[in-house]
Amino acid sequence: MEYYSQQISQLIAELSSLPGIGSKSAQRLAFHILHMPRGDVKRLSETILSARENVRFCKECFTLTDQDVCPICGDMKRDHKTIMVVEDSRDMAAFEHMKEYKGVYHVLHGAISPMQGIGPEDIRLKELMSRLQGDVEEVIIGTNSTLEGETTAMYISKLIKPTGVKVSRIASGVPVGGDLENTDEITLLRALEGRTEL
Amino acid sequence: MEYYSQQISQLIAELSSLPGIGSKSAQRLAFHILHMPRGDVKRLSETILSARENVRFCKECFTLTDQDVCPICGDMKRDHKTIMVVEDSRDMAAFEHMKEYKGVYHVLHGAISPMQGIGPEDIRLKELMSRLQGDVEEVIIGTNSTLEGETTAMYISKLIKPTGVKVSRIASGVPVGGDLENTDEITLLRALEGRTEL
Repeated sequence: MEYYSQQISQLIAELSSLPGIGSKSAQRLAFHILHMPRGDVKRLSETILSARENVRFCKECFTLTDQDVCPICGDMKRDHKTIMVVEDSRDMAAFEHMKEYKGVYHVLHGAISPMQGIGPEDIRLKELMSRLQGDVEEVIIGTNSTLEGETTAMYISKLIKPTGVKVSRIASGVPVGGDLENTDEITLLRALEGRTEL
Repeated sequence: MEYYSQQISQLIAELSSLPGIGSKSAQRLAFHILHMPRGDVKRLSETILSARENVRFCKECFTLTDQDVCPICGDMKRDHKTIMVVEDSRDMAAFEHMKEYKGVYHVLHGAISPMQGIGPEDIRLKELMSRLQGDVEEVIIGTNSTLEGETTAMYISKLIKPTGVKVSRIASGVPVGGDLENTDEITLLRALEGRTEL
């Protein structure tokens, strides 16, 4: 990188600080950007900044969105009495991709992990509990099938049980140890159908 | 992507238009960016734009740089009578990484490829020839060991021969069919040492 002029080195450094982008990829990306039409680079740069500036948490489900309320929570045709709890917005997109789920979501932004020092107060659990004050019939726990995801599912079910709201967990159709995000639609559909009450 | 709000979808679309970044990686990157501190995102966005705005071709060797003349051409301790011809700025960085070469460079920005319709007039050959009007003792052709790189090397050597300037080609220490950019330093050093006059 010291063989490039300062602005190029800085661009390579910024790009290689992103996850999954090593030094070779960062160089390739940097030179691609330097050869792109100016207008396209301006749009890329502005899109990055504008997304970060305008994206916030949905007031209802806490997914990342550019409105006060996300398109799913704002859709009155959806079943607002069924809440699917997921770890992050990408898991929510994975379920949406399946096209079978008609309820709404709740995004925790993490999972309980004693190893990483993440406790129940570090994820959006308090917000989930206050949503249950409203007219909710079922909470489906769609956290990952990892140790952290299972721990979180158990914790949530214990928390909700006393309120009388039905709690279910997606079935173990999801490969154990795998990420929801990388699960195919059929597996996700089986997981949804085979959910068991906790 | 239709499951994300507009600004997020747009960010994912921009990122997945970059080379080597598929739709999953673009989603991962997008959410990483959305979770980064605002100041860091501002710097990333500005670095991209500023690099594209300020980087131009070095007046001497045509590498990409943020000054009129790149640091190598501006370094009077280097041997300006020896010019290494490379296909792009990253190949130049690969040679610099080897730390043995003390001459200067000439960046062609491509290679002759009849298959892709790239002719001698599409790369920086005219500019190389006008540099030979000055005090030049040797031109080392350091193009890739690919069909296009070899074609370009042959073409350049035929062009330079009549001028009386010595022309050499880096040795076939570079694995045939491989890219210079991914070659280890020892192979590059052998290639430099074993160069043969054309």
